[in-house]
Amino acid sequence: MKGAELEQILADCSSGSLALDEAAARIRAFFFQDLGHSTLDTDRERRTGAAEVIYGQHKTPEQIADLVSALSDNGQNALVTRASRQAFDAVLGREPEARYHETAAAITLTRTVPPPPHTTVAVITAGTSDLPVAEEAAVTAEFYGNPVNRINDVGVSGIHRLLARLDAMREARVLIVVAGMEGALPSVVAGLVDKPVIAVPTSVGYGASFGGVAALLGMLSSCASGLAVVNIDNGFGAGYLANTINRL
Amino acid sequence: MKGAELEQILADCSSGSLALDEAAARIRAFFFQDLGHSTLDTDRERRTGAAEVIYGQHKTPEQIADLVSALSDNGQNALVTRASRQAFDAVLGREPEARYHETAAAITLTRTVPPPPHTTVAVITAGTSDLPVAEEAAVTAEFYGNPVNRINDVGVSGIHRLLARLDAMREARVLIVVAGMEGALPSVVAGLVDKPVIAVPTSVGYGASFGGVAALLGMLSSCASGLAVVNIDNGFGAGYLANTINRL
Amino acid sequence: MKGAELEQILADCSSGSLALDEAAARIRAFFFQDLGHSTLDTDRERRTGAAEVIYGQHKTPEQIADLVSALSDNGQNALVTRASRQAFDAVLGREPEARYHETAAAITLTRTVPPPPHTTVAVITAGTSDLPVAEEAAVTAEFYGNPVNRINDVGVSGIHRLLARLDAMREARVLIVVAGMEGALPSVVAGLVDKPVIAVPTSVGYGASFGGVAALLGMLSSCASGLAVVNIDNGFGAGYLANTINRL
Amino acid sequence: MKGAELEQILADCSSGSLALDEAAARIRAFFFQDLGHSTLDTDRERRTGAAEVIYGQHKTPEQIADLVSALSDNGQNALVTRASRQAFDAVLGREPEARYHETAAAITLTRTVPPPPHTTVAVITAGTSDLPVAEEAAVTAEFYGNPVNRINDVGVSGIHRLLARLDAMREARVLIVVAGMEGALPSVVAGLVDKPVIAVPTSVGYGASFGGVAALLGMLSSCASGLAVVNIDNGFGAGYLANTINRL
Amino acid sequence: MKGAELEQILADCSSGSLALDEAAARIRAFFFQDLGHSTLDTDRERRTGAAEVIYGQHKTPEQIADLVSALSDNGQNALVTRASRQAFDAVLGREPEARYHETAAAITLTRTVPPPPHTTVAVITAGTSDLPVAEEAAVTAEFYGNPVNRINDVGVSGIHRLLARLDAMREARVLIVVAGMEGALPSVVAGLVDKPVIAVPTSVGYGASFGGVAALLGMLSSCASGLAVVNIDNGFGAGYLANTINRL
Amino acid sequence: MKGAELEQILADCSSGSLALDEAAARIRAFFFQDLGHSTLDTDRERRTGAAEVIYGQHKTPEQIADLVSALSDNGQNALVTRASRQAFDAVLGREPEARYHETAAAITLTRTVPPPPHTTVAVITAGTSDLPVAEEAAVTAEFYGNPVNRINDVGVSGIHRLLARLDAMREARVLIVVAGMEGALPSVVAGLVDKPVIAVPTSVGYGASFGGVAALLGMLSSCASGLAVVNIDNGFGAGYLANTINRL
Amino acid sequence: MKGAELEQILADCSSGSLALDEAAARIRAFFFQDLGHSTLDTDRERRTGAAEVIYGQHKTPEQIADLVSALSDNGQNALVTRASRQAFDAVLGREPEARYHETAAAITLTRTVPPPPHTTVAVITAGTSDLPVAEEAAVTAEFYGNPVNRINDVGVSGIHRLLARLDAMREARVLIVVAGMEGALPSVVAGLVDKPVIAVPTSVGYGASFGGVAALLGMLSSCASGLAVVNIDNGFGAGYLANTINRL
Amino acid sequence: MKGAELEQILADCSSGSLALDEAAARIRAFFFQDLGHSTLDTDRERRTGAAEVIYGQHKTPEQIADLVSALSDNGQNALVTRASRQAFDAVLGREPEARYHETAAAITLTRTVPPPPHTTVAVITAGTSDLPVAEEAAVTAEFYGNPVNRINDVGVSGIHRLLARLDAMREARVLIVVAGMEGALPSVVAGLVDKPVIAVPTSVGYGASFGGVAALLGMLSSCASGLAVVNIDNGFGAGYLANTINRL
Repeated sequence: MKGAELEQILADCSSGSLALDEAAARIRAFFFQDLGHSTLDTDRERRTGAAEVIYGQHKTPEQIADLVSALSDNGQNALVTRASRQAFDAVLGREPEARYHETAAAITLTRTVPPPPHTTVAVITAGTSDLPVAEEAAVTAEFYGNPVNRINDVGVSGIHRLLARLDAMREARVLIVVAGMEGALPSVVAGLVDKPVIAVPTSVGYGASFGGVAALLGMLSSCASGLAVVNIDNGFGAGYLANTINRL
Repeated sequence: MKGAELEQILADCSSGSLALDEAAARIRAFFFQDLGHSTLDTDRERRTGAAEVIYGQHKTPEQIADLVSALSDNGQNALVTRASRQAFDAVLGREPEARYHETAAAITLTRTVPPPPHTTVAVITAGTSDLPVAEEAAVTAEFYGNPVNRINDVGVSGIHRLLARLDAMREARVLIVVAGMEGALPSVVAGLVDKPVIAVPTSVGYGASFGGVAALLGMLSSCASGLAVVNIDNGFGAGYLANTINRL
Repeated sequence: MKGAELEQILADCSSGSLALDEAAARIRAFFFQDLGHSTLDTDRERRTGAAEVIYGQHKTPEQIADLVSALSDNGQNALVTRASRQAFDAVLGREPEARYHETAAAITLTRTVPPPPHTTVAVITAGTSDLPVAEEAAVTAEFYGNPVNRINDVGVSGIHRLLARLDAMREARVLIVVAGMEGALPSVVAGLVDKPVIAVPTSVGYGASFGGVAALLGMLSSCASGLAVVNIDNGFGAGYLANTINRL
Repeated sequence: MKGAELEQILADCSSGSLALDEAAARIRAFFFQDLGHSTLDTDRERRTGAAEVIYGQHKTPEQIADLVSALSDNGQNALVTRASRQAFDAVLGREPEARYHETAAAITLTRTVPPPPHTTVAVITAGTSDLPVAEEAAVTAEFYGNPVNRINDVGVSGIHRLLARLDAMREARVLIVVAGMEGALPSVVAGLVDKPVIAVPTSVGYGASFGGVAALLGMLSSCASGLAVVNIDNGFGAGYLANTINRL
Repeated sequence: MKGAELEQILADCSSGSLALDEAAARIRAFFFQDLGHSTLDTDRERRTGAAEVIYGQHKTPEQIADLVSALSDNGQNALVTRASRQAFDAVLGREPEARYHETAAAITLTRTVPPPPHTTVAVITAGTSDLPVAEEAAVTAEFYGNPVNRINDVGVSGIHRLLARLDAMREARVLIVVAGMEGALPSVVAGLVDKPVIAVPTSVGYGASFGGVAALLGMLSSCASGLAVVNIDNGFGAGYLANTINRL
Repeated sequence: MKGAELEQILADCSSGSLALDEAAARIRAFFFQDLGHSTLDTDRERRTGAAEVIYGQHKTPEQIADLVSALSDNGQNALVTRASRQAFDAVLGREPEARYHETAAAITLTRTVPPPPHTTVAVITAGTSDLPVAEEAAVTAEFYGNPVNRINDVGVSGIHRLLARLDAMREARVLIVVAGMEGALPSVVAGLVDKPVIAVPTSVGYGASFGGVAALLGMLSSCASGLAVVNIDNGFGAGYLANTINRL
Repeated sequence: MKGAELEQILADCSSGSLALDEAAARIRAFFFQDLGHSTLDTDRERRTGAAEVIYGQHKTPEQIADLVSALSDNGQNALVTRASRQAFDAVLGREPEARYHETAAAITLTRTVPPPPHTTVAVITAGTSDLPVAEEAAVTAEFYGNPVNRINDVGVSGIHRLLARLDAMREARVLIVVAGMEGALPSVVAGLVDKPVIAVPTSVGYGASFGGVAALLGMLSSCASGLAVVNIDNGFGAGYLANTINRL
Repeated sequence: MKGAELEQILADCSSGSLALDEAAARIRAFFFQDLGHSTLDTDRERRTGAAEVIYGQHKTPEQIADLVSALSDNGQNALVTRASRQAFDAVLGREPEARYHETAAAITLTRTVPPPPHTTVAVITAGTSDLPVAEEAAVTAEFYGNPVNRINDVGVSGIHRLLARLDAMREARVLIVVAGMEGALPSVVAGLVDKPVIAVPTSVGYGASFGGVAALLGMLSSCASGLAVVNIDNGFGAGYLANTINRL
């Protein structure tokens, strides 16, 4: 609850230009809007600078289409992550401008192009199996208006491939590094650049990888200083964080 | 290896102004300086924008004093984390300007004041037991020249205490949120601000806290978008990352 | 074995009004009734105040229908949790008054309406994905006669949504708070009310959520005092406990 | 923020009997009181029905004595958990009426005797090694005014010992059952009574007990319905929850 | 290699009644018989007192039928565990006397009835969901000739059901106790009898049961002395061990 | 509660030879004897065939001496496990015939020599570091009157050492096999004998041994049929179980 | 970057026989070749002595066929691991000489027969269920030209089967030992030979095997010195390592 | 049991030149030598090519000195790992030529210099905290006669330091790479050389390093092919394996 707004309501209330009931309602309205089965966070963009995103897993195509339309009707852009092609078909029936990002399994609908930052987000993968997670990150960053530079398949077992891309990496303002298995790539990258590095462990691997745990622990324990780690396979979180940083 | 420098060496070599042996040595010199028991990363500041930091744990007071003096002799600032008072006494014998940060268990020696960013880093704790980790973060951020605003003891079981500090939190450009036990505070904070939030789990708690694991998993699984998580008790990493972001 | 009953049997036995064999049998009858493949706990309602509940998982539709009919024939109410629609169809063929609760995946058959407590149980969810577990809790509480107030989708990343429902929450005599991911919501709620709070972790989430472990550990480690925690996804247990408390 | 109070402030503000600045301050005062290194939750008793408790671990005797005196000066009762005898000596120097509970490692100072509930809390242990945790629970319940009935050393490997205490157990309105090792006792007790059972796993055991994990998992997975589980060794939480329930 | 046999071979070799090559072959024959893709342990019954058992999981119906026939041709009895009905159909086509145990998912073929011990093995379950594992144990014990007494559904949340079967339990010479969830039943049983108790954790349960881990840890940590624990769901191992003990 | 005794009490009650109050008391006396801080299981030997054993850990020397004297006064033998030399000194002051087993850290006091079984228990170790656990097992078995044959340091990395002891191993009626690290020895032994094998994992090892977890999991997962596994370092449990089996 | 090559380029550059741009490009070419979606490691064979291998999991048949053809066009041999029969059919349509290894689930295409080492790699399994992993190891070793000797089904529960193969085992220069469940076989083998032993844990087993974790921990904790352990089910890694050693 | 020796004994027995008893004893003597509290593996060097090594942890200085003297008396070299300085002092009192390796915490006594391989073992560390483990590996390799080349402090966060040592790394025939934290260094090294790489995880790190688990999982999950992994902190195992390979 920002101070100035509260003071204004009280001033209006005090001056009689705002009825007592209305004043109480407005103060409460900073706090909620009840839609029965869900509670819309209408205040979210003002508070956090980014509109609501729809997490597609566990939702039916119909539910997803409803939510996208609702946002669209309010003139807002929509991003759906972990969305199946079936969900996209349902959305497309209502919003013909929606777009499906196959590898990222994401739907986007852009009604208002966000003002772009002029600086780039790099999305780097250790192997081709990490691409779905990396694309979720890249599509998210692009959804919020960030130029994205993709650098693929430069894992640490062939370190020269990485070194050859140093210039491209150093041009980015924020770097997202996506790796499964032992998850060593972010440590190497963070030792080569002077920008924030977001490390995304993926569930790529088997056996002692434990579905991404090996990569996650490795990134948290990194000998490189100041890695920003997100959850296993959380490409969306990485793209969202990169946007928050790149817009500073 | 940055392109321009390489081209220059080759041009000099080609024009005869640089001997063949010397050219090979210089190219290799981008790569190392061997000091026997350790390998100095002289190139680190150019690459990553921040000088070497000394991790004090497992090192003797003498070793720490040696390392601080070495940096000092090169005119560099020094930060030692996880340093005992004994280590500080050893350092003080040689560097009378060194300073000990009791709660953070850190030593700093500032020979050149870094150009400050004008924007603030907020360091927020859930409880007073989280202070040592929070101070390690704050001291690190200050070491690199960032103004720090400390907000203490605003854990989620008394949520109104947090809401009362909203204005202070929203003034920061980067927020570090330090919490043990269930580690819920970063989720709440990230829903209230539009700036990057760095979440630091601490080992405060017992039983099912498992030395910080509960807080770590909670922060990684947060329903708030885009938290940047670091290792358990890693105040240094959080402060370092905050500086990297705040200097953008 | 309650004292008074035992003394009475012994008195009757001593006075000769009860045969020796019959007395021994009656004492044993406090202890069991053998039905071959299972052992009916006929004494359960007297001991624990609540009739037997059928856990539907791993049982065939026929088995479930048999069990419901058996309870119905004894004039008892029946609750089946984790029941598929197939199981409900089998039950409906025999008990036309049975009712299916889709989201909760539960079957109820109410022959005798239990005397209601006049006080309310609140069932609160962090997100819409937590609804199946929350509904299992709500249906269970209602099955035992408790009025239930549902408050949905008020997770901690939009804390104002929660604060807006404070009055509703404070009207309840017992609160069930259902949350997946980091499971922070019960900590916040428990800091706002003076009634018992039952925390239910759900398996909603991915990666470091580890199927509900992150939420479970968070609730057990909560900085809020006195949370009552139940197993992951155990909506039934929460509803049952809420009834036990609300009937005090 | 309770509705009525807010409306009153606004009414006073509107009528001119309350200055605009003062009104804003009062609304904010629902939310905090800043003491520098910590943030006093003065509103806690109104919100949650129970005054602040001091967690003694990690605090110096001086800090603990300061906090107890502060509460005492405000006429409030004080409970310190996980307190050493050194801490008690420091407290005793200032508050001669303070009392130390050796087994529970707790300090209490009672300035105002709370109105007692007339119903009893039973605290039951599986073995004598569980006594420290059980006493923390019992002392906490007594601190809040609850009569406590202790039933010790009735673990499941000698089940007849437990059955012999059935009458005592059934007289309680809330039961706290404390057990380490396999933690089976709460399951057995919950099958014998019709009151809420709070299960407290302890770290008693070795090897596959994993510091209380075996008991914790067993209690969460219990075949008995509706156990309320708290953290490993969390006697305080159990006592606090028992009080919340017993006061309904 | 038993001493007497070796001495005999050497004596025969020395006396010339056994050729040198043949003597070496016979000594080696104590050690192996190579069948290409597998290595038959022909010596097993002499060494361990029990013939080979076929673990059906991961084997095709044809492979299982081959193995049963091979044993049958040698006049040996056959037991196949974790066998599907398809596997049984394949076996039945060749061995019309084979029998399928539906709940246990086991196939038996008895060509020679083993000499029975006169003492009984009790197989006790906590709940009906534990039956498949219990039946695997019972069928295995019966396969080796042991009389088995089944006592079902006597879990600890209705402890009187268990006490009513005490006489039956005390008649057994070895007891197998099968339980999932918190796995407390073996602890209670072991406190009531003076015979060996074999504890079998099952994967029955959800959430914090972790597929039988809660029950396994509980049984290993039991406060009852001297439980013999086997792997999760390992009914075969329990039945095999019971036979080894009962034949002493 | 054994049937015959109950019938007798009822018969006496019915015939008037036993007063009603006394009859109820006697039935209850099957169930308990309350000593305030602990609840003596006087019925234990009748039920389980073995007297109470004192677990020394967490108990003071005085408490241990009290308990040994109490047993001694009742003419019972006493075994204290995990007992320090200090505890033994306290016991010796009162019971001059008590004996301390250094390696096993156990105290025994034998007032009545138990009737020996004529068959032997073998206690086998993989390495010399496993001796303390093995001795706890051996001393326990001997305390209950079993002849024990110790076979030491025959781990699987020098398999011929084990094979050379085959005759000794085959003479035992029950075998206890104690091993840390990978815990493979019981699997090998169980493949060579036709008697029950009790596997005891020890905490010997480091790193991926995880304090005995590697050995524990290995023994539970053994390819050998029918291992009886006990808790990590639980020599007492193994010796107790061996006695229960050997007395059959 | 090998010194001699670098010096040569610089010499040519200095002498004018190599243009400056070309020299920089060649130096960079040590480091990468960008193919858009992936980054070919053309330098790999020179650096590590073994050509690229295709990990088939997560790749479509078309992608696999493309990659095999690309290698084939360059005259290189191709090995695809974790390949389905569908993948093989796609490859066969283009490369009629390709061969499918059913049990190993591997595809090989050999254009140039590698010069064989004259020494043998032994691949030993504990049970028949370990064959798929063992065959992946054997096929990999053979792909690189190593003679392989397979020894199957010699697990530790029938130790004499293993001893009978000692001569065969001792003829190998490197031994790969594949085992699931408790994974004890490598420990026994390593105590019998004087050659490097590579231990491969498999996911064979259930319950406390935890998908190969028991075997993995056992091998890492082995009492035998100097086992080389690889990931669970990683037959390829074992075969690759065996080749690296055998070629020394 | 090697074939030729057995045939010879049998031939001698058959020809009468060897008494029957003596023949049986000799065959058994392949299998053991019993020293009471331990079982000497006299056959070990013949079987595995390396003499016995003493693991110093858990042994008293006296015991260690006894064992070293025993080996010395037999003219054998001695290596003691995890040995304290106190242990060394005890050894030195008897064997003045013994040598203590401070960082490695190892004692060596060399009576016969082993014939050296002419090829080198490289021991590489990620950071200076990894030195104790690396030195244990280096001292072990040197004990067996291998020339060792140490390369220190070349962790992946400053990758150019590593690249500068490529020539030195490529001169080795076997490489041991020691790393804690995320343990990424072996992956990078294995991508740069064509020789076997032995990966040693260390317990250096905190929080999510979990005492070396993060490094261990990372090395097992490495994207580099064919790493040979040993237990956490197992420098000895790595040095032993390197010797076994280097002597091929």
